[in-house]
Amino acid sequence: MNDPIETLTSLFEKFPGIGPRQAGRFVQFLLRSPASVRRELAEAVQALSASVHQCIECMRFHSEKGKACGICSNKNREASLLAVVASDADLTALERSGTYSGHYFVLGGTISLASEKASGLRVKQLLDSVPARVKNGMNEVILAFPATPEGDATATHVREKLAEIPTITVSSLGRGLSTGSELEYADPETIKSALESRR
Amino acid sequence: MNDPIETLTSLFEKFPGIGPRQAGRFVQFLLRSPASVRRELAEAVQALSASVHQCIECMRFHSEKGKACGICSNKNREASLLAVVASDADLTALERSGTYSGHYFVLGGTISLASEKASGLRVKQLLDSVPARVKNGMNEVILAFPATPEGDATATHVREKLAEIPTITVSSLGRGLSTGSELEYADPETIKSALESRR
Amino acid sequence: MNDPIETLTSLFEKFPGIGPRQAGRFVQFLLRSPASVRRELAEAVQALSASVHQCIECMRFHSEKGKACGICSNKNREASLLAVVASDADLTALERSGTYSGHYFVLGGTISLASEKASGLRVKQLLDSVPARVKNGMNEVILAFPATPEGDATATHVREKLAEIPTITVSSLGRGLSTGSELEYADPETIKSALESRR
Amino acid sequence: MNDPIETLTSLFEKFPGIGPRQAGRFVQFLLRSPASVRRELAEAVQALSASVHQCIECMRFHSEKGKACGICSNKNREASLLAVVASDADLTALERSGTYSGHYFVLGGTISLASEKASGLRVKQLLDSVPARVKNGMNEVILAFPATPEGDATATHVREKLAEIPTITVSSLGRGLSTGSELEYADPETIKSALESRR
Repeated sequence: MNDPIETLTSLFEKFPGIGPRQAGRFVQFLLRSPASVRRELAEAVQALSASVHQCIECMRFHSEKGKACGICSNKNREASLLAVVASDADLTALERSGTYSGHYFVLGGTISLASEKASGLRVKQLLDSVPARVKNGMNEVILAFPATPEGDATATHVREKLAEIPTITVSSLGRGLSTGSELEYADPETIKSALESRR
Repeated sequence: MNDPIETLTSLFEKFPGIGPRQAGRFVQFLLRSPASVRRELAEAVQALSASVHQCIECMRFHSEKGKACGICSNKNREASLLAVVASDADLTALERSGTYSGHYFVLGGTISLASEKASGLRVKQLLDSVPARVKNGMNEVILAFPATPEGDATATHVREKLAEIPTITVSSLGRGLSTGSELEYADPETIKSALESRR
Repeated sequence: MNDPIETLTSLFEKFPGIGPRQAGRFVQFLLRSPASVRRELAEAVQALSASVHQCIECMRFHSEKGKACGICSNKNREASLLAVVASDADLTALERSGTYSGHYFVLGGTISLASEKASGLRVKQLLDSVPARVKNGMNEVILAFPATPEGDATATHVREKLAEIPTITVSSLGRGLSTGSELEYADPETIKSALESRR
Repeated sequence: MNDPIETLTSLFEKFPGIGPRQAGRFVQFLLRSPASVRRELAEAVQALSASVHQCIECMRFHSEKGKACGICSNKNREASLLAVVASDADLTALERSGTYSGHYFVLGGTISLASEKASGLRVKQLLDSVPARVKNGMNEVILAFPATPEGDATATHVREKLAEIPTITVSSLGRGLSTGSELEYADPETIKSALESRR
């Protein structure tokens, strides 16, 4: 049998952004914690498998009753808008802003510029869901991707696929100065967008 | 007489962003440089006094012949637009973007939130210059300040002052995701602007 | 019942150095991982309780058979030397250096300068173990604490306690330039030690 | 004639650690400063040429009367010790520590590992000065180089050259934990030195 300290350290090393040193600290932290903390952690990890599932509409993970999550099943949300986001975290950021009340679809990532592949992204699932959404009143898809080369490549790809559906508008989040940006250090592209979207 | 090494070190310490250690390195660098480099530097510093002057129109520093700088005296620039910027560096950033062809006015800074004073800023000079600019065809003032609390306070202040002139539009640079921004880390204000200026 | 995503997020937030954002990423990572990974993690966490115990001699955590760990029960290690370290991680660092072959005692931390208390540290247990160790041939205690104010305070405290035992030498790790240190940025204390320990 | 703003910017860009952006800020800072500040700076730079010279003994730059600097001409300093340092800044660091009262020799840099050349270093001048220093009572040369690969290569080189002189001891600064070092993150070499120089 393996050393449980080493086994757990190597599991923590696979966590995003965690190297061997911090993985080791996590294990030491758990060793010094009461047994009840370790039990709670083990149970919470297992509970993910038992009670978390993907929403069949927006594809995000949730633990609510029902196949669709609370946002997708909320009749008060604007049916005319669909925001396509890369990840659950980006969906959360949009919700936190308190200014969007439409629906969501989580694509599951962005196109990697190394591979230029959209594999792993739920582009087909998005397209398949469009007819029913249009019937429901949807008339605008907002591509809410990060303002990075990967986000831009993903937007271009999704935009091409959606171009075949004539009844919907496809928009992208506006560019400009982010809160906190110094003009002096802004790139020409950002300044161009900020000038164009002045008001 | 003072030690010239110490005198020069303390002068370099007053340079923006330079602490005692780097000031000392500058002096060591000059000591190890040939005497011709020191002479060149001393002459270039003195030449600023002799040949650099402020443009009487936009207030930036330049070393061209004539009282107005090359941008202000360029008949091909759009006379209808006036961008008000905080500093020469921000003016340079806008020029570098290659998308602005109007005129400029350098305010000389932003309102400090500590003092909430606009003293030192050329607000009066800006207002005094407006009638002649309007006669020349100017109809929009673009407040091109950094997207910081100081920049916002300055915009509010200048906007109030300009409100009394009914024939001109006052606009501000658009907010949104800057190039490179992750949606996940964007603040609610930036997301709100990005949603509103989507297209 | 609570939301398992939130429960797990708040557990990860207690991990050393982990804020809410990274805790959320950990959960998303586990959600996207196969169920087998979650099961493995839960089991490894529980296995700590089942198979890890503290060495009765050096007090570090280990998962070997027997009450004493592999180092403490190794007859080939030098019985004359005892290194007192703050943590398991510091013990590991000394072992990794490959230059120490004596025994260890893990004190369990350093004195906090805020509280100036040595509570929680195993000073009494260390002192209690000394007579038997002396009988076994131990004649030097090496205080191997970090070169920080906390480490220094801990060394002073332990040194006072050990002063009553006349038959043993108490030493501390030597100070000097660490590998990679620039002389220019070294503090006077480090330079003093480096000069004194020159050779 | 060139634009004095650009000329001065490109001169500041040659300063150690200064890029085009900060060079531009320096020029803007000088433009906004009163003419008296620019005159003072120009004069201080020129004064370096006029009143700073290299000490004929230790080779550091100084502005004192006399060919030898204040340290080298100080009869109270210990004649038996000679610290060989890489730079004036390292000499200053040793002086600041208040624990060294011997003499100095500034080598003028360290061996670059890229070129593996000692060219530009005053090794020959150091060796030439040794007989007179020995006659004066010098019996130990302390190689006080940074604890970096470059510093180590320089020490090895100088040590080889000095090996031919049998009457002097050659020592190097001691290695160990620098003030503030955590044991956990220390490299094996540093731990080895710290263990060996324990006391």
